[in-house]
Amino acid sequence: MHKGKLFVFSGPSGTGKGTIVKELLKSPDTWFSVSCTTRAPREGEIDGVHYFFVTQEKYDQMVEEGGFLEHASIYNNSYGTPKAPALEAMEQGKDVILDIEMQGAFQIKEAYPDAILVFVLPPSLKELSNRIHHRGTETEEQIQVRMATTLQEIEQLPKYHYFLINDDLDRAVEDAKSIIKAEHCKVDGAASSVINRFKEEK
Amino acid sequence: MHKGKLFVFSGPSGTGKGTIVKELLKSPDTWFSVSCTTRAPREGEIDGVHYFFVTQEKYDQMVEEGGFLEHASIYNNSYGTPKAPALEAMEQGKDVILDIEMQGAFQIKEAYPDAILVFVLPPSLKELSNRIHHRGTETEEQIQVRMATTLQEIEQLPKYHYFLINDDLDRAVEDAKSIIKAEHCKVDGAASSVINRFKEEK
Repeated sequence: MHKGKLFVFSGPSGTGKGTIVKELLKSPDTWFSVSCTTRAPREGEIDGVHYFFVTQEKYDQMVEEGGFLEHASIYNNSYGTPKAPALEAMEQGKDVILDIEMQGAFQIKEAYPDAILVFVLPPSLKELSNRIHHRGTETEEQIQVRMATTLQEIEQLPKYHYFLINDDLDRAVEDAKSIIKAEHCKVDGAASSVINRFKEEK
Repeated sequence: MHKGKLFVFSGPSGTGKGTIVKELLKSPDTWFSVSCTTRAPREGEIDGVHYFFVTQEKYDQMVEEGGFLEHASIYNNSYGTPKAPALEAMEQGKDVILDIEMQGAFQIKEAYPDAILVFVLPPSLKELSNRIHHRGTETEEQIQVRMATTLQEIEQLPKYHYFLINDDLDRAVEDAKSIIKAEHCKVDGAASSVINRFKEEK
C-alpha cells in the first residue's frame, strides 16, 4: 500500500502558514498531529484533541526515549510532537502535515530525514510589516526587530526543500497541494516496488 | 524573472503520454518544441509548424555543433529536438514539455542535466495488452514481444525523477501539472535569488 509522507511547514511568524496547513488538513488523505504539553489545560481544551496533557515526568521520559519528532520548552512549559502516532498514520497511508517553528523543523529533519520541509515566505518584508502594523499589537521598534529576525530566518531557506510565497492564499494552497502530489510521484524510494508490481503480473 | 524548466515525458509506447503532454501544452506557460527532420514534408505539413524540414547536410552540421537536445535516425530519416529555441523559451519563462522515446530522454539528461524526467506507466501490462488487442493492429505474437519489451523498459524507471500511472487520464494530467508546479517551488537553484530579493528590500 501507498505510504504517507511527512510534510513540515515552517518559516518566519506572520506569513500565514497556519492558514495554509488548515486548508491542507481538510483532505481525508492528511493527518493532524496532536502535540504533547506539560502545561495545564485551559477551559474547553480536551485531552487528546487540543493537546495530550502530560506530566513533566512523562514528558522527560518521552524526550529520553526519543519519543518526539521535535520538542521545545517555552516559558517553563514544554511541548512536543509525538513520533509514534505520526509514523503509524504514515504507515496507514496518511500524509502528516505539521506547522512548526523553524528550530523544530530542523529537529524533525534530524529525527526523520525523509521529512519534506516547506518554507512559507511573506510576499515581501514591507507587506509583512504592514500586516503587523495593521494588527496594532506591536510597537514600531518591535516591528523593526522582528523584520531583522525575519531576514535572518529567510537566510535559512537552503535547509528546506520547497518554498511558497504567500502573496495569494489560494495560489499558495494550490502550490502546497502540488508539492504533496508531486512527492507521491517521485521515483526515489518507490522504484523497486513499482517495478515489482509489473514483474509479478507476468 | 522566473525561468522555465525542461520536462521530458517518456516511457513505453501505448501508455498515452502524448495525450497527457497535449493537455499540458494548453497552458500559456508551456512551450511546444518543433522537431527537425530530414524526411520530406507530407501533404499539409508546414515548415516550422509540424517540423523544421532540413537537408541531411544541415542536420549533420547541427549534430556536429551539439545543436540538438536529442536526435535519432529511424528508417533512413533523421529527427532531432533543436536546443537553441528550447533554451530561449526557458529564458523567457516558458516550461518546455517534450514527449520523447526513452533513448532520447537519456540523451537529453546528458545534454541538459537540469531536465526533469517523467516516466508514464500503463495501469498494468494486462491493461496495455488489452488496449492493443482492441486496436487490432498487431498479431498476438507481436503483442507478446511488445509486453516483454515494455517490462524491460519499466526496469529503466530509476533513471527518471517522477512517474505517472495513466489509469485515469484526468488524474494523470493533474499529477503532471502538480509535478510542474512543485518543481517551480523547489529551493535548489532558487535559494540565493529568493534570499537576495528580501535582502535588497531592506
